[in-house]
Amino acid sequence: MPYVTVKLLEGRTDEQKRALVKEVTEAVSRTVDAPAENIVVFIEDMPKNHYGVAGTLFSDK
Amino acid sequence: MPYVTVKLLEGRTDEQKRALVKEVTEAVSRTVDAPAENIVVFIEDMPKNHYGVAGTLFSDK
Amino acid sequence: MPYVTVKLLEGRTDEQKRALVKEVTEAVSRTVDAPAENIVVFIEDMPKNHYGVAGTLFSDK
Amino acid sequence: MPYVTVKLLEGRTDEQKRALVKEVTEAVSRTVDAPAENIVVFIEDMPKNHYGVAGTLFSDK
Amino acid sequence: MPYVTVKLLEGRTDEQKRALVKEVTEAVSRTVDAPAENIVVFIEDMPKNHYGVAGTLFSDK
Amino acid sequence: MPYVTVKLLEGRTDEQKRALVKEVTEAVSRTVDAPAENIVVFIEDMPKNHYGVAGTLFSDK
Repeated sequence: MPYVTVKLLEGRTDEQKRALVKEVTEAVSRTVDAPAENIVVFIEDMPKNHYGVAGTLFSDK
Repeated sequence: MPYVTVKLLEGRTDEQKRALVKEVTEAVSRTVDAPAENIVVFIEDMPKNHYGVAGTLFSDK
Repeated sequence: MPYVTVKLLEGRTDEQKRALVKEVTEAVSRTVDAPAENIVVFIEDMPKNHYGVAGTLFSDK
Repeated sequence: MPYVTVKLLEGRTDEQKRALVKEVTEAVSRTVDAPAENIVVFIEDMPKNHYGVAGTLFSDK
Repeated sequence: MPYVTVKLLEGRTDEQKRALVKEVTEAVSRTVDAPAENIVVFIEDMPKNHYGVAGTLFSDK
Repeated sequence: MPYVTVKLLEGRTDEQKRALVKEVTEAVSRTVDAPAENIVVFIEDMPKNHYGVAGTLFSDK
């Protein structure tokens, strides 16, 4: 605890995901005073045809 | 804002997803008085072997 | 099925939520060809101090 | 209702998922006094490079 | 890991929630071969006016 | 985009939540190369009797 979920458009590299997990964990630990070893991060990839803003799929923009 | 997530059995066409995002956005905008340009829709596909009702996987029905 | 979750800033009336559930259900049913009686809608209220964009809590704007 | 989501590391067999849905449904039904036919279970597979604890991706451990 | 979320209509007692967490944890541990000490359960209460089926809020039924 | 959800045990102050949103947004922006103005953070408070590990509610520990 805490549990963090990050929803991203697909296409990030493993290197970016590795840095994301590391730095988000540090930010959460620092700001809410939780030990880093208890912090869990889930990454969710969104395909471009599964995400819409203002009524339009991202894949149609 | 608002943020809408629609969980569906996999297999819908892009044409159906396009219409879904458009019409759900309009329905939300109209009923809760939010500008359409602020409304976000996420679609999540569920495989048939990842969904169960009454104790039975959908893929076994 | 499908299952729809709508995350809203708190403060909408029951009348707005009633209309939201009705019209979102109709929009989903029409566009992905699912019977309305199978469609489930969850509403989640977000307090203004639990939601941030661009690094700033909504309650601070 | 109730709705149960189980997030797992990818790699379980269909036989394990079948048993999971069956036994979780029974456990929920028994403990909160809900008819099994109303209980829905969603399974979500997590890839090892989409899950981190203590700042490190599971795929790096 | 695994992570389980159970969404329930509000109104269950703490005794029911205690039994729910215990028995769901056992069911998950047994079926997907995960040690119980790694299993996390989240309970989410749904108010009756935040949940609709077939276009109608549960609080209107 | 991206969309970040942070699930926390209840009890953090608004000052902690403000810092959390700010620093998580910066960490995500930096690591996945997304403009901060597009990043959304949701905070979810968990009551201690709605969260269990190893089969035991946190409120019973």
